[in-house]
Amino acid sequence: MKYFIIEELAKAVGGTLVGGTSQRITGLEQIDLATQDQITFIGNAKYLSLWKTSHACAAIVSKNLKLEPGPGKALIRVPNADLAMVQLLELFQPEAPSLAPGVHASAVVHETATIGTDAAVGAHCYIGQNVVLGARVKIYPNVSIFDETAIGDDTVIWSGTVIRERSQIGRHCLFHPNVSIGSDGFGFRPSQDGKSIVKIPQIGFVIIGDHVEIGAGTCVDRGKFSATRIGDHCKIDNLVQIAHNCILGRSCILAGKSGLAGSVTLGNGVVLAGSVSVKDHVKIGDGVVIGGASVVIQDVPAGKKMLGYPALNYNDTLKHWAQVRRSVRTRK
Amino acid sequence: MKYFIIEELAKAVGGTLVGGTSQRITGLEQIDLATQDQITFIGNAKYLSLWKTSHACAAIVSKNLKLEPGPGKALIRVPNADLAMVQLLELFQPEAPSLAPGVHASAVVHETATIGTDAAVGAHCYIGQNVVLGARVKIYPNVSIFDETAIGDDTVIWSGTVIRERSQIGRHCLFHPNVSIGSDGFGFRPSQDGKSIVKIPQIGFVIIGDHVEIGAGTCVDRGKFSATRIGDHCKIDNLVQIAHNCILGRSCILAGKSGLAGSVTLGNGVVLAGSVSVKDHVKIGDGVVIGGASVVIQDVPAGKKMLGYPALNYNDTLKHWAQVRRSVRTRK
Amino acid sequence: MKYFIIEELAKAVGGTLVGGTSQRITGLEQIDLATQDQITFIGNAKYLSLWKTSHACAAIVSKNLKLEPGPGKALIRVPNADLAMVQLLELFQPEAPSLAPGVHASAVVHETATIGTDAAVGAHCYIGQNVVLGARVKIYPNVSIFDETAIGDDTVIWSGTVIRERSQIGRHCLFHPNVSIGSDGFGFRPSQDGKSIVKIPQIGFVIIGDHVEIGAGTCVDRGKFSATRIGDHCKIDNLVQIAHNCILGRSCILAGKSGLAGSVTLGNGVVLAGSVSVKDHVKIGDGVVIGGASVVIQDVPAGKKMLGYPALNYNDTLKHWAQVRRSVRTRK
Repeated sequence: MKYFIIEELAKAVGGTLVGGTSQRITGLEQIDLATQDQITFIGNAKYLSLWKTSHACAAIVSKNLKLEPGPGKALIRVPNADLAMVQLLELFQPEAPSLAPGVHASAVVHETATIGTDAAVGAHCYIGQNVVLGARVKIYPNVSIFDETAIGDDTVIWSGTVIRERSQIGRHCLFHPNVSIGSDGFGFRPSQDGKSIVKIPQIGFVIIGDHVEIGAGTCVDRGKFSATRIGDHCKIDNLVQIAHNCILGRSCILAGKSGLAGSVTLGNGVVLAGSVSVKDHVKIGDGVVIGGASVVIQDVPAGKKMLGYPALNYNDTLKHWAQVRRSVRTRK
Repeated sequence: MKYFIIEELAKAVGGTLVGGTSQRITGLEQIDLATQDQITFIGNAKYLSLWKTSHACAAIVSKNLKLEPGPGKALIRVPNADLAMVQLLELFQPEAPSLAPGVHASAVVHETATIGTDAAVGAHCYIGQNVVLGARVKIYPNVSIFDETAIGDDTVIWSGTVIRERSQIGRHCLFHPNVSIGSDGFGFRPSQDGKSIVKIPQIGFVIIGDHVEIGAGTCVDRGKFSATRIGDHCKIDNLVQIAHNCILGRSCILAGKSGLAGSVTLGNGVVLAGSVSVKDHVKIGDGVVIGGASVVIQDVPAGKKMLGYPALNYNDTLKHWAQVRRSVRTRK
Repeated sequence: MKYFIIEELAKAVGGTLVGGTSQRITGLEQIDLATQDQITFIGNAKYLSLWKTSHACAAIVSKNLKLEPGPGKALIRVPNADLAMVQLLELFQPEAPSLAPGVHASAVVHETATIGTDAAVGAHCYIGQNVVLGARVKIYPNVSIFDETAIGDDTVIWSGTVIRERSQIGRHCLFHPNVSIGSDGFGFRPSQDGKSIVKIPQIGFVIIGDHVEIGAGTCVDRGKFSATRIGDHCKIDNLVQIAHNCILGRSCILAGKSGLAGSVTLGNGVVLAGSVSVKDHVKIGDGVVIGGASVVIQDVPAGKKMLGYPALNYNDTLKHWAQVRRSVRTRK
């Protein structure tokens, strides 16, 4: 098991060591759950009182907080405990699960596919015609990737994920388990006799930029024609629906259970909190923030913060909620 | 790459060619994104101004719109540009990803299973005891189909999909990636000592009609006893939940992230927009339309249009929303 | 096909047989759908009128209801028809799909993995380094389980499920198809140049207790550090999102499409109806019930019943909804 001594951790976060401990430190934990071989962190005054009884052998503490080390317990003072915690997470990060480089004997890879240098294709994967996997790409077991898809260098695809034909995936992407990329958009028309519904062919594809993360169970449909596009650095959580022909700019964040109907356009840096839904063809400008569970039914100009069903200006919805609370308390 | 000349396209959509182009036309694209080897379409006056600067070598244009072809650019005049677009999508539709007919060497197929004429079972599939696959059925790689399930002719099942035992799937269906059919309904009872929760066996199954499309990640649970039923021509989008013992009539449309709790009944031609939820045991009549993100908590008679949480008559909810907008602007 | 005679069923539910039938009874069905080889049940006076025309050869009927058997049709009188129905479901429950004990020849199991007594690993499964499967564990085809994961005795995992490294799964659990356990929590920070978003390593894991059921397509993310925890006897439906570092007590029920954002804490016996969303860091006390599609944005004390967006006391939201209904009917 990976471990560090307290002096190594103090150096790693650029902090000042106060007191000391001889423990081999094997991990991080929150203050009330930490054991004696773990370090904790205190970034907020409300946790100060827990330090005395915490079993942690050390704590990262923000400089502005008044705290003393205890017997055999060390402090590392830093400007910002949250940032230092991220640095420790990087330090303690265990290795990824084993995946031998090259193509596993049980994988089925079409003879026309190209597997990049030091790429790995796990057990029971299927790789179709003319697929191109970049250098150091990691495909974990039980993934299916269809014809003419290209995946950029250093991208990692977890098990159960399905990538349909003609998808273009960037570099340094991370797809979690059971993702569906490039399935048909949801487009139909009434039949001529009016008695049933006829599928409109969905002949487009999906383009995903670099450094994009896509959560477990999330779906990104192909365009009806042309592409559904997800910009560089977008981060998409679990169970998110992105319908056909959506266009996402750079660095958008879509939290769990959110969803975009067809042809929604997001600018750069848009943030959707959990369970947000956006109506088809809506355009949302740069830097917009949509609060949790909101339903956006019309265009939102850049920089706005919206909330509610239907989504209004954030403060207007808060005001409405306050009105509702008053009305249920005072009226019969 | 598939291509057509302009005369072929004009004939295919039954339109009138005006002007001409010598381009080999390889696809469709919207007017602002089209390149010179693509055709675009103009069904609405608001796009007319973009025609001059569009790189498209041709456009399908609705007869009622006033437009002239440019130098080396052709028009095809049609009664309805949207319908002509669908015809072109069918024309340009690329072939489906390669899937050799027969059973792939790596697939595991129980000796009692029946594989129809010209059916294909992809790599790493599992086909259980007494499963029957109809003629021309296509099962893409990494699909699991369990005992006693029957799948009708010409149905296509994409990768990652799991179909539990005793399911009955119709003909010409299309299941997208990572669909779950026939998993247990969600039924429990308190234990006799009141200290825990005991599972109620879910011994029913799932019956799915013909021409049904089911989106990526969507779940259809088996009945507690008897069946969960989905009628012919239903079209169900991604990440939809259909709980045990729901009954869907013909030609229902359920958009992304919608969901039905247990024992919901939908008539024929019911439309649920995205993110709609329906309470258990609710009955929704023929032709009802439920607006986006609505929550339906009581029965809805045929022909109604409903909206909101809770869902009210469409116009009532619009009125309520207008009241809310006024109240946040005028009151302190 | 399994069948019973009426005397066997009367004995099984401890009921009193009135009248008789010579049918071999092969299953249960609701009163209007039952065929002559099926038994139905009548727990509510509103179904009494259907008994005469029902094709069922027998009915379980609650003692307090007045009903007579018909010609060749039997009744079994019981104190509680619903409970008797559960007993019959257990009796009629068909066997689970075939899965040969041992490791299927096509499964890829790391040499360091431990497979318990009478455990079964299906076709095309992947079992990573140092994984431990308990006795009688059943892993259906196309499942991926990663390094250092431990799964307790008698747990059943359905196809398409992915369990990431270092997960701890209890005994007698049931995971439905396409579940994702242990994928990365959704944590990011702005890059130092402010131009992009940087991933915060998610080095924790998932701990799931005994007798936990997890629905199709549901996702449980690993902790940022330390664990996401799901207590014994929790029952989680389809397409549910449980984000990093959530803590669920014993016997919680989460219905379909519900979701918990990061670091939500649920006490014991909490019930979330379908499509409920809970904001990050919210604490919900023992025995709380949250109504369908509610959005919980602040802590809820034990024993409360909440409803709405935002969630208020149940009766307050009902009052608000009544106010809305009145306001749309009376005001212009």
